[in-house]
Amino acid sequence: MKKVAIVAVGITKFNKSEKPLESLMLSSIRPIFENTRNLEQDDIDVLLTSTNANRNYLANIISELSGIKPRISHSVESLCNSGTNSLVSAYAYVSSGLADVALVVGADKSDNPGLVLNWDMSRGEYRHPIFWSSMFTSAHMRKYGTTLEDLAYVSVKNHRNALDNPHAYFEKPFSLDDVMRSKNLTENLRLLDCSMPCDGAASVLVCSEEKAKKFTDMPIWISGIGQKTISASFTKNNDLASMESTKSAVGDAYRMSNKTACDIDVVELHDAFSICEIIELEDMGFCRNGHGSKLVRDLHDTNNKKVNPRGGLIGAGHPLGATGIAQVVEIHQQLSGKAGKRQVDGAQTGLVHNMSAGSTSSTVLVLEV
Amino acid sequence: MKKVAIVAVGITKFNKSEKPLESLMLSSIRPIFENTRNLEQDDIDVLLTSTNANRNYLANIISELSGIKPRISHSVESLCNSGTNSLVSAYAYVSSGLADVALVVGADKSDNPGLVLNWDMSRGEYRHPIFWSSMFTSAHMRKYGTTLEDLAYVSVKNHRNALDNPHAYFEKPFSLDDVMRSKNLTENLRLLDCSMPCDGAASVLVCSEEKAKKFTDMPIWISGIGQKTISASFTKNNDLASMESTKSAVGDAYRMSNKTACDIDVVELHDAFSICEIIELEDMGFCRNGHGSKLVRDLHDTNNKKVNPRGGLIGAGHPLGATGIAQVVEIHQQLSGKAGKRQVDGAQTGLVHNMSAGSTSSTVLVLEV
Repeated sequence: MKKVAIVAVGITKFNKSEKPLESLMLSSIRPIFENTRNLEQDDIDVLLTSTNANRNYLANIISELSGIKPRISHSVESLCNSGTNSLVSAYAYVSSGLADVALVVGADKSDNPGLVLNWDMSRGEYRHPIFWSSMFTSAHMRKYGTTLEDLAYVSVKNHRNALDNPHAYFEKPFSLDDVMRSKNLTENLRLLDCSMPCDGAASVLVCSEEKAKKFTDMPIWISGIGQKTISASFTKNNDLASMESTKSAVGDAYRMSNKTACDIDVVELHDAFSICEIIELEDMGFCRNGHGSKLVRDLHDTNNKKVNPRGGLIGAGHPLGATGIAQVVEIHQQLSGKAGKRQVDGAQTGLVHNMSAGSTSSTVLVLEV
Repeated sequence: MKKVAIVAVGITKFNKSEKPLESLMLSSIRPIFENTRNLEQDDIDVLLTSTNANRNYLANIISELSGIKPRISHSVESLCNSGTNSLVSAYAYVSSGLADVALVVGADKSDNPGLVLNWDMSRGEYRHPIFWSSMFTSAHMRKYGTTLEDLAYVSVKNHRNALDNPHAYFEKPFSLDDVMRSKNLTENLRLLDCSMPCDGAASVLVCSEEKAKKFTDMPIWISGIGQKTISASFTKNNDLASMESTKSAVGDAYRMSNKTACDIDVVELHDAFSICEIIELEDMGFCRNGHGSKLVRDLHDTNNKKVNPRGGLIGAGHPLGATGIAQVVEIHQQLSGKAGKRQVDGAQTGLVHNMSAGSTSSTVLVLEV
C-alpha cells in the first residue's frame, strides 16, 4: 500500500448565500492552486465531488470550470459522511497506483436534500434527525445519568471555539443559559444542541509520496482509515447509548495507524447534536463509557481546544457534503501549525470522525505529520 | 498494485416496469449470492451503487436490504459511465489493500435524470443527446463519406445480436429498411439509430487474488484500466469525427494490460447512437480511421459477434447507471465461456468501453482469463 499525503487544502466561509453549489466548490479549490508550489491543472489525475445535491456529472462540470482534464472524475455520495468517503476513495486511487494526484471537493447548500431521512418509511412522522438524536440522548441519560446541562456544555464549548474560526457559520458566543433556554425541539433536545445546515465548500489535495515532494515540504500523511456501515436505519444500532459503526471504524483506523486514543493530539468529531460528541468521545476511547460529559466539561473549563477546535458542526455549521472534508482541512491546518488562534500546541497526530444518519455509517481517519 | 478479479455477476431483464430502483438492484444481486460458492454477506467489505437517480444513502439502503454490513459504502455518479467508474473505484479499494471483496451494483429507471444535459446552458435548445450524436455523424460523414446506410448496419447488427440476449430490451429483429425508414429525429439520425432508455440493473463482485480462490475456480482478471475526462461539454472535443477521451482511455488501458487491439477477442462498446460504434472502433484501433463503417458491415455480413455480442446499448437498452456494469457482465460471461448463443469461440481477452455525454468522459477496461 503506497503512502498518501495531504498537501493542500481550501475552504469557504460557511453561511447562507445566493451562491450556486458550483461556485462554492470553485471558491474552495482556488486557494489550493494559489498556495501550492508547482501545482498545475495538468497534475491532477482525479477529481471527486462530494454532495447531497441532486446533480448529474458534477465532477466533470467542476473539472471543466477549473481547467482540469482528469483521468478519473465522479461524484461520491453517502449522506453526511460523503466527504470522508470521497477522501478515502481518493486515497484508494493513489494508494493503488491508479493515480498520483487527486483533488476532492465537497459542498452543499442549506436546502439540499439529505436533511430529512425520507427513505425510511418505518420512521413514520419521525424522519427528522432530531428524533434519532433525542433517542440517543434518552438512552445515554438512562444509562449514565447524563443531564441537559451536560449537553449544553458541548454547545457552549463548540460555539466558543468557532469564534476563532473565520469560516464558521456562528460568530457569537452562547452562554450555558442561552443554550438551556433555547427552543425545545423534543423533551431533551434544544435548538442550540443542533448543528446548523448551511452553505459551504471544502477541498483537499492528496497525492503519492513522490509527488508530495514537488508540492510541499510539509506533507501530512493519512496513516489510518476505518469505515463501517451497519444499516441505513438507526434502529439497528443495538445500544443507543453508543455508536456501533463508530466503534468499528475507530478500531480499524487505530490498528492501521498503530495508534491509540492516547496518541491523538487533536480531534474533529461529528457533533451533529450535542449528545454525539459525548458518545463519540467515549466510543473512540478518549474516556471511559459514561465519562464523556465530564470530559466535555473539563475541556470547556480549561479552554482546551483538543476536541473540535474549529467549533465542530454545532459551531461551524453543517453543509453535509463539505463537512467531512472541512474536518480534514482543520486537522491538516492543526498538524501544519497553521491553525492560528485555534492551534493546539505541538499537534503531531490528529483524528477525524465523520458519520451519517444516526451513526449508521462512520468514517475515522488518522492523520500524522 | 494487487491483482483484482471478477468472480461473479448478476443482471436483470432490461425493460420498462413498475419496479422501484431498489428492487431492481436487489434482483441483480441475488444471482451473485445464489451462484457463488462460499459467499456470505459478511465477506463483503465494500458496496458501491451506481445510478443517475436522485437518491441519498442508496448504498447503505441496499446494504441493509441485502443483509450486508460493509466497511465502505457509497454511491458513484458520472452520468452514463457511472457503472465503470464505480467498478474502477472498487478496483482501487481492493488493489490498494483497503478492502478484499467489493460488490458493485448499478441501476436506473427509464425516467431517471441524466437523459438530457440540463446543466449545459450553452447548448440552448439542443440539450438532448441526439444533437451531439447528430454533430458527430455530420463530421464523420464529411471527413470519411460515411452514409446513412452505414449507420443502419450498426443498428441491424446490434438488434440481431440482442435476439440471443435474454436480458435485452428489444426482442425482435429490424431490417436495414426498418432502420432507414424509422422516424427521422434530425437530418442524419433516425429513431433506430438510438439506444433506448429503460429500466435495468447489473452487479459485479470483485475481489483480491487470495479471496478469489475461495469463490471460484475461474476468476476473470481486470488487467487494464484507462479513464479520461476532457470536459463536461462535448463542444470541447477538437475533432468531432473522433473521440478524444476514448483515445486517451484506450491508450492507458492497453499500456496497463500490455495489450493492443489485435489481442482483443470480444468488445462491449458504448453505442449510445450508431455513429458511436463506428467512431469508437476506429479510435480503439480495431480498424484505421474512416474504416469503421466497413468493419461494421463485415461483422454484420459474417454474423460475427465480436463487437457488442449482447446487442450493445442499441439492442439491449440503456439504463444509464447499469450500462457500464452490464457491459462488464457480458465480457465476464464471454471469457467464462458462459455466453450461450452469444459466445465468441475461445474468447480469452475482452474490452469494455463506456462513455458519457458526447464522449466527454470515457472508461476502458481490459479483462482477461
